[in-house]
Amino acid sequence: MRTPTKTLTTAVSTLLLTAAATLSAQQPANVILIIGDGMDDHQITIARNYLVGSRGRLTLDQMPMRGVAQVLTVNESGQAVYVADSANSATSMATGEVTSRGRIATTAGSDQPIPTIIELAEAAGMKTGLVSTASVTDATPASFVAHINARFCENPEAMQDVEFSGIKIGDCTQHLAVNGGAGSISEQIARSNVDVVLGGGSKHFAVNSAGGSTSVSDLASANGYHVVTAAADMATAPADQKLLGLFSPGTMPVRLQGEGGREAEKPVPSWANHISRYIGSVTMPEPMICEPNPGFAGMPSMQSMTEIALARLRNDSGFFLMVESASIDKQSHERKPCGSIGELEQLNEVLDSALAFAESNPNTLIIVTADHGQAAQMIPEESLFAAFGAPVFTRGRLARIKTPEGTIMGVNYATNDFIMEEHTGVNIPVFSNQTGVGKIPTMITQPQIFELVREHLGL
Amino acid sequence: MRTPTKTLTTAVSTLLLTAAATLSAQQPANVILIIGDGMDDHQITIARNYLVGSRGRLTLDQMPMRGVAQVLTVNESGQAVYVADSANSATSMATGEVTSRGRIATTAGSDQPIPTIIELAEAAGMKTGLVSTASVTDATPASFVAHINARFCENPEAMQDVEFSGIKIGDCTQHLAVNGGAGSISEQIARSNVDVVLGGGSKHFAVNSAGGSTSVSDLASANGYHVVTAAADMATAPADQKLLGLFSPGTMPVRLQGEGGREAEKPVPSWANHISRYIGSVTMPEPMICEPNPGFAGMPSMQSMTEIALARLRNDSGFFLMVESASIDKQSHERKPCGSIGELEQLNEVLDSALAFAESNPNTLIIVTADHGQAAQMIPEESLFAAFGAPVFTRGRLARIKTPEGTIMGVNYATNDFIMEEHTGVNIPVFSNQTGVGKIPTMITQPQIFELVREHLGL
Ligand SMILES: [Zn+2]
Ligand SMILES: [Zn+2]
Repeated sequence: MRTPTKTLTTAVSTLLLTAAATLSAQQPANVILIIGDGMDDHQITIARNYLVGSRGRLTLDQMPMRGVAQVLTVNESGQAVYVADSANSATSMATGEVTSRGRIATTAGSDQPIPTIIELAEAAGMKTGLVSTASVTDATPASFVAHINARFCENPEAMQDVEFSGIKIGDCTQHLAVNGGAGSISEQIARSNVDVVLGGGSKHFAVNSAGGSTSVSDLASANGYHVVTAAADMATAPADQKLLGLFSPGTMPVRLQGEGGREAEKPVPSWANHISRYIGSVTMPEPMICEPNPGFAGMPSMQSMTEIALARLRNDSGFFLMVESASIDKQSHERKPCGSIGELEQLNEVLDSALAFAESNPNTLIIVTADHGQAAQMIPEESLFAAFGAPVFTRGRLARIKTPEGTIMGVNYATNDFIMEEHTGVNIPVFSNQTGVGKIPTMITQPQIFELVREHLGL
Repeated sequence: MRTPTKTLTTAVSTLLLTAAATLSAQQPANVILIIGDGMDDHQITIARNYLVGSRGRLTLDQMPMRGVAQVLTVNESGQAVYVADSANSATSMATGEVTSRGRIATTAGSDQPIPTIIELAEAAGMKTGLVSTASVTDATPASFVAHINARFCENPEAMQDVEFSGIKIGDCTQHLAVNGGAGSISEQIARSNVDVVLGGGSKHFAVNSAGGSTSVSDLASANGYHVVTAAADMATAPADQKLLGLFSPGTMPVRLQGEGGREAEKPVPSWANHISRYIGSVTMPEPMICEPNPGFAGMPSMQSMTEIALARLRNDSGFFLMVESASIDKQSHERKPCGSIGELEQLNEVLDSALAFAESNPNTLIIVTADHGQAAQMIPEESLFAAFGAPVFTRGRLARIKTPEGTIMGVNYATNDFIMEEHTGVNIPVFSNQTGVGKIPTMITQPQIFELVREHLGL
């Protein structure tokens, strides 16, 4: 039976909800796009098991909207490619266009610049921001602000005959200023109007800008950026200048590492096992805990960078902010599950801050997603075929992680036998806060994320 | 502006929707639970790329509700285990209880039977059915109808000193009839009241029932089952008897196979590559198409079995039907991507039939989900590190599949180097039709599937 008090409560609730909806529509439209690089469902499950237990829930898991995105990639001829990299998948989200691996907001084949959501937002008088735990010149942030054919052209000295580990991997000659181009990624950021840029990558700003005798950092200062390199200096940066924070030479150190710095290792079978898979034995990697990474000391957390960015971006015309947790991917490439777990924990904290911000700024759309899948795979700690008595083991690399709930989680890296693991082609998760419920379909393509952001910002 | 016609249309729509809702509530409650064994997001993406292209959508992808389920497993002491098998995960869905790997609807440690959703539905006067492309005695269907400590106890001759490939893997002695138990899985099915049981596994019904001189099949007949072994005989089976269809000795043959029966194969590096990963070359497996499996001829499709089941189960008191696409998993264990793709295609066709059924039987809840992850991983056809010039390749087994959209998809199997791949611990997808929208949270635990089914059936 409904009591008068209950009826009153209901009436008040309805009134409040209506008021909230009206208020929300009057508020400036904001978008916080949080990208977990390489954060597929496998990475999320591994981090969840470690951080909150197999029955636990991350903030991520409690989002009211959950779906998937199809990751689309083409080659230079426009044919389907089934596995993306961070450059082309970030370009999808930043521009709505499907392109080829390695490209930063440029078209496959024809190498033309594609307008990004940040450029559109700026043109409409909105504020914009980029936060990453990678170099701010790395593929994901770069795709929102720069236009170039190859992601490795991060600074003026990395535009011609670019080498990696002594091997020539290509060039961006056509984008040199002398050839009428916009120059390297760091130069394009230095000349940009992005209001807040925070992350790693100071080495890409320390070199001289093309044909000049001053550094890219000086170029940024001349273009109105207040440049900081210490975490403590973010909070005191003048409010009337753009802010460029560069807290490490390249990728920022991660929060967690394997015990004693260990990574996944190869199981070692006995000689007899080389004769037949049914005989012999195998020495498995020793179980290990995850521990704090000493190199992380002094680094601003992803959450603190995000909170600084939100405070600076909040304005009457709305904003677009992209926050990237870069090393879920980078640590998985290096077969370091603890590093990926710590990065995913940081992303989850960023989400806590974003949700708190949206609480008091109700027209804020929060989207959390990944760019592509990663190699890490949770496999049984005791093989399904243990009853056979034979040694059963991966030919890849295995980490056996002691979890806080007292058991062992096996994480396998086995996409190749090279210095770094590959990405995978799995579709990736998409989450949003209440603002996206009913607006974001349960399955989208990655370029649709651009459309959804544009629509929310009214661009 | 709203025209009078539009207002009328809106009014009529509202009227129709209200009528539909009222009608739906008056209809008997039905549940169709479709389980893709091993069907994680990776398997779905691989199948989608092959069947409808990287930009295409399966029926599965068009479901209005999409979320994930946490797969929970414990060991005999109740500690968390991060990777499930089909027995314990099907037990979660069938009973709502978390148990240990290998167990069929029995408790971890104490080995007590747990009531299943089929038993609850029967007790309430509802009809029930089980369809699988595995043996009907296999772990997934078994967990809905039988209670035993070990999944391999599929028939009376497989209860003591059970061997697999010559290795003793355990026993179910305590469940023998002479010890007061319910006997093997096939005997428990033969004595059950499930109205429709369709799939493979005739060999488990051909052996004599425990201590008797007649077969388990005869036991089933004596218990009111009409037993058929040919696809054509399903449609003409008498309506007033229970139906047991056994269309192959064990697992039913799958629809697709690799070209010439090929499976994933090991890349073969040149001798120089054994000295350094940066030198030498590698011979990759030849690309292949998927082709029809000749062994599939004469088999009923998963869709035809489902349609027979639906026609027989439809009644005024409602029903529960579980349909399993078993070989997404089994073919992935055997490193046969084409087999998994064909099975997922079959599941998708089953879903088409289920949706058509729900169209005319509106109080039907359709849930599609998986039981656990599988080994198959889509990796780049051209390595991300191809620019290095060195051979980059998996130490697992690779299939390079020529897709109908004209490119090549690389599928890697590398969880172990044994005769069969492992499962993985990733959380798994959950889909439902409109009936489940707003009732199924975007993240659930696997045991919650039991609760959701029970609630819809009013049990
Ligand atoms: Zn990467
Ligand atoms: Zn399996």
